[in-house]
Amino acid sequence: MSTVTWIAVDWGSSNLRIWAMGADGADGAVLERITTDQGMLELTKDQYEPVLLSHIAPWLGDTAMPVVACGMLGSRQGWIEAPYGTVPVSPASQTVTVQTHDPRIDVRVIAGLQQLEPADVMRGEETQIAGYLAQNPSYSGVLCLPGTHSKWVAIDAGKVTSFQTVLTGELFNLLADKSILRHSMGAWDEASFLQAVAQSAQSPEALLTGLFGLRASQLLRGDDTGKSRLSGMVIGTELGATKAFWQGKETVIIGAGELARLYGAALQQLNATVKVEKVEEMTLSGLKTVYESVFK
Amino acid sequence: MSTVTWIAVDWGSSNLRIWAMGADGADGAVLERITTDQGMLELTKDQYEPVLLSHIAPWLGDTAMPVVACGMLGSRQGWIEAPYGTVPVSPASQTVTVQTHDPRIDVRVIAGLQQLEPADVMRGEETQIAGYLAQNPSYSGVLCLPGTHSKWVAIDAGKVTSFQTVLTGELFNLLADKSILRHSMGAWDEASFLQAVAQSAQSPEALLTGLFGLRASQLLRGDDTGKSRLSGMVIGTELGATKAFWQGKETVIIGAGELARLYGAALQQLNATVKVEKVEEMTLSGLKTVYESVFK
Repeated sequence: MSTVTWIAVDWGSSNLRIWAMGADGADGAVLERITTDQGMLELTKDQYEPVLLSHIAPWLGDTAMPVVACGMLGSRQGWIEAPYGTVPVSPASQTVTVQTHDPRIDVRVIAGLQQLEPADVMRGEETQIAGYLAQNPSYSGVLCLPGTHSKWVAIDAGKVTSFQTVLTGELFNLLADKSILRHSMGAWDEASFLQAVAQSAQSPEALLTGLFGLRASQLLRGDDTGKSRLSGMVIGTELGATKAFWQGKETVIIGAGELARLYGAALQQLNATVKVEKVEEMTLSGLKTVYESVFK
Repeated sequence: MSTVTWIAVDWGSSNLRIWAMGADGADGAVLERITTDQGMLELTKDQYEPVLLSHIAPWLGDTAMPVVACGMLGSRQGWIEAPYGTVPVSPASQTVTVQTHDPRIDVRVIAGLQQLEPADVMRGEETQIAGYLAQNPSYSGVLCLPGTHSKWVAIDAGKVTSFQTVLTGELFNLLADKSILRHSMGAWDEASFLQAVAQSAQSPEALLTGLFGLRASQLLRGDDTGKSRLSGMVIGTELGATKAFWQGKETVIIGAGELARLYGAALQQLNATVKVEKVEEMTLSGLKTVYESVFK
């Protein structure tokens, strides 16, 4: 294996992702990837360093290895509390240094972002945004980062000017897995999803009153499209309530897999223009930008 | 104890309530009350009769005791599937007879109601509505039955013409107990509740996008009113989306305890007129109406 030059880390609530990074190259210089479920929610403050070392020890040498990390490890309940940058601001422009016990690592944690009014916060997504801006330095427009808590981000000339967190993914999971609606999910039906997106984007005020209808239409008509309709209802409601961000602009989705596809299909259903960027690439691009500004 | 003439039963998803009823009197003729957590979700089809007998055996004699029951015991997963009456219809005007093993009981289960478009169903509430209509036979107006799944019911000349189920209570419980917001609930603050009711009733489209703000404003400002604001947001959103039912009319709330109080305070905050009827009285009044029409 080529020499590891620095280590990139995305340490979220539920997962820990580590990349061994070499000298730059056409492949993005990733020498090795590790993904574990040792997320913040599983760890106490004093477990972060041993957990990290257990994965990266083979890559360490005589001099302190640069480690650049983003995500919930920077929260009060994480490894070290990193401050929030306040919008409008360049994302991922601040870091804090962790006082480690092991001198073989030099760990920097990227600060999250806050918006004072309406109150909002992010930790982790600022690095993906910085990754996109590293490749599009003077970008003005909108980014959508789907997830358990999706983020809508307005960018003006490379700075985050405002953002909005929406609990859509968490709400979908709670309703689909733990509510009375769990008995009415059925198989996936794309047409029902798109129809629900269109209806809910038009009438976002009808989400709460529309939910029980998924159960009732299954009981009365044997409707088997509950899961698709619920997904379309929550994503459509999100899109209807965030029009100020995306209407009349191209939306850049930073995401992966089925969720990024659903948001893309939903926005296109509403006649919006969409481009998708891969979240892992953007995260690495953002971590690399910080690595270069801090360590080079 | 005076002689038990008939037995009233409200058998829901989570609870079983039984009343031993005597001859009529000023006290409503209730001789004894039993409440247990032996709800539908805990029982298989063949357990209903033994469970019921275990509670009522002391009251039985040589002739078959009339038992009138409402609630989820009439669903497909219950004791016996009772059909739905289709609106517009007089509520609780249909029953089915259970074939019991024990000849000492004669059990009638009250049919629920269905609405075909938009699809909606109720089981149990139709009996409370019938109880109200027994005391107000030619009523035209709106009833609100708060609960895990609240019901809004339009009545015209003693018939249910339409209704709407809203998952408000279940959604509140999921968000307050199982979502990221569970860390931001705090103590009760009535002013914050009423303010959130007013805002959400005005902007019911903003529920989904407003939820994460409860977490963020606690993180950034130490806001300790999350529980009150979440409650105000979901109830206010419900009221904003159900205006067609209640605006410009007196709303009769059939409920009990804190939840009925909250709905009353919320409607008054929106300048609506409210009257509260006790749910146990309405249930018993409805069961008694059916008892008299079936057994007398």
